[in-house]
Amino acid sequence: MEILLTNDDGIYSKGIYELYTSLSNIADVVVVAPLTEQSAVGHAITISDPLRVHEVYRKSEFFGLGVRGTPADCVKLAFSDLLSKKPDIVVSGINHGANLCSNVIYSGTISAATEGAMLGTKSFAISLASSIFDDFSIAAKFASYFAGYLYKLNISNNTIFNINVPPLQHDEVKGWKYTVQGKTKFFDAFEKRIDPKGNVYYWMIGEKFKISELENGDDKAVNDGYISVTPLHYDMTNYEIYNKFKTMRLKDENV
Amino acid sequence: MEILLTNDDGIYSKGIYELYTSLSNIADVVVVAPLTEQSAVGHAITISDPLRVHEVYRKSEFFGLGVRGTPADCVKLAFSDLLSKKPDIVVSGINHGANLCSNVIYSGTISAATEGAMLGTKSFAISLASSIFDDFSIAAKFASYFAGYLYKLNISNNTIFNINVPPLQHDEVKGWKYTVQGKTKFFDAFEKRIDPKGNVYYWMIGEKFKISELENGDDKAVNDGYISVTPLHYDMTNYEIYNKFKTMRLKDENV
Repeated sequence: MEILLTNDDGIYSKGIYELYTSLSNIADVVVVAPLTEQSAVGHAITISDPLRVHEVYRKSEFFGLGVRGTPADCVKLAFSDLLSKKPDIVVSGINHGANLCSNVIYSGTISAATEGAMLGTKSFAISLASSIFDDFSIAAKFASYFAGYLYKLNISNNTIFNINVPPLQHDEVKGWKYTVQGKTKFFDAFEKRIDPKGNVYYWMIGEKFKISELENGDDKAVNDGYISVTPLHYDMTNYEIYNKFKTMRLKDENV
Repeated sequence: MEILLTNDDGIYSKGIYELYTSLSNIADVVVVAPLTEQSAVGHAITISDPLRVHEVYRKSEFFGLGVRGTPADCVKLAFSDLLSKKPDIVVSGINHGANLCSNVIYSGTISAATEGAMLGTKSFAISLASSIFDDFSIAAKFASYFAGYLYKLNISNNTIFNINVPPLQHDEVKGWKYTVQGKTKFFDAFEKRIDPKGNVYYWMIGEKFKISELENGDDKAVNDGYISVTPLHYDMTNYEIYNKFKTMRLKDENV
């Protein structure tokens, strides 16, 4: 099995190193990841600047290629120029922090997996659902298990899975389950300040929640001690509304 | 009707000015938009830097607030701090270039509309489907018509519409229709270069297409001379795969 490994916390982060070590037990792993942290970049791509690529060493050994760009850039460039052949699976992570509910759309970690799926490869993103707890071992082990499972799974090649691992010790994790993207809402708060020259600026100071736990939501699974596995796709069409309105085809005078 | 207007080409672009002028005929319009071009930023948000806000004048009149941030930042900050009340509709555009098929996920224009929907407001993104043709008048006029239509439409407040206007003269546009996100695939190509110090870098040099025209796809509608209106949502769950696999709840030894 050949795996392309990337992330959004950057190629020097702890999460990608532990994931690399674990996946290397079961596959040939090529690392192409951002040189610097890219959190909350969403599905950004670099279109007006050149992309630089550097060889990166960790613990005195060659570890992978660092790209001055976003996670999506890494996957695009890997497929088009850096890899000798198409990988079997694209893996992104381990992100240090949850990617649950609507936060999925801000996630650089998930954008890399989505890019892999768009290029016709099975893919998954894996996140440790805490920015404080920093024991990545369960997530790293589960990623190896899931890669083997996904490799054999009879499923289309443009499939993305979003995995979130609860911040628990080994004997506290209850198992894993398939989930849907939860409905809990987040509202950002900003703090207004005045700089020494009298100009206004704002700091984002975190999120308020409006919890709306779906029984099968990813957030509930993680809160209950399960690893959540949510299948995603990149078709954003709202078919419910489309099917309701599709018969309207107007030649309107305002057009 | 109160409209929050933003974009991703920046507050000094032609598209947002023409859209402002047109929407001002039917609504009170507040502009909060990025100070500089933000194309292909996806749904990025700024979490590690402060956001600065500047008053922007165009043609010697106050035009709106320019934010040193992304389109999603603009909408978040407008709702939390800059607007005196929640708008009826969030409008994003007019983008100079198409936002069709899977390119939706890279679009800063659409991310702003999505952010509006996440904050509980009807929203739409509007793009002129050409980066060369620069007559925004049909798109601007259609936006006013659609804003009035959407304002009265009995639909949930977290709805997003992605509108693409073909680059045609008025009498060539055949009308508008509801569509789905098309399936045409794009593959990026990169050009490898060596800098004067001997280091490798890559330029993205455009896209190759693998056309796959769905009968009801947004790309086909625009190619056929229609304005496409695609309802979107921000639930990325692939329910087809979820429903196929949801009964699997393993307490696996590998977990």
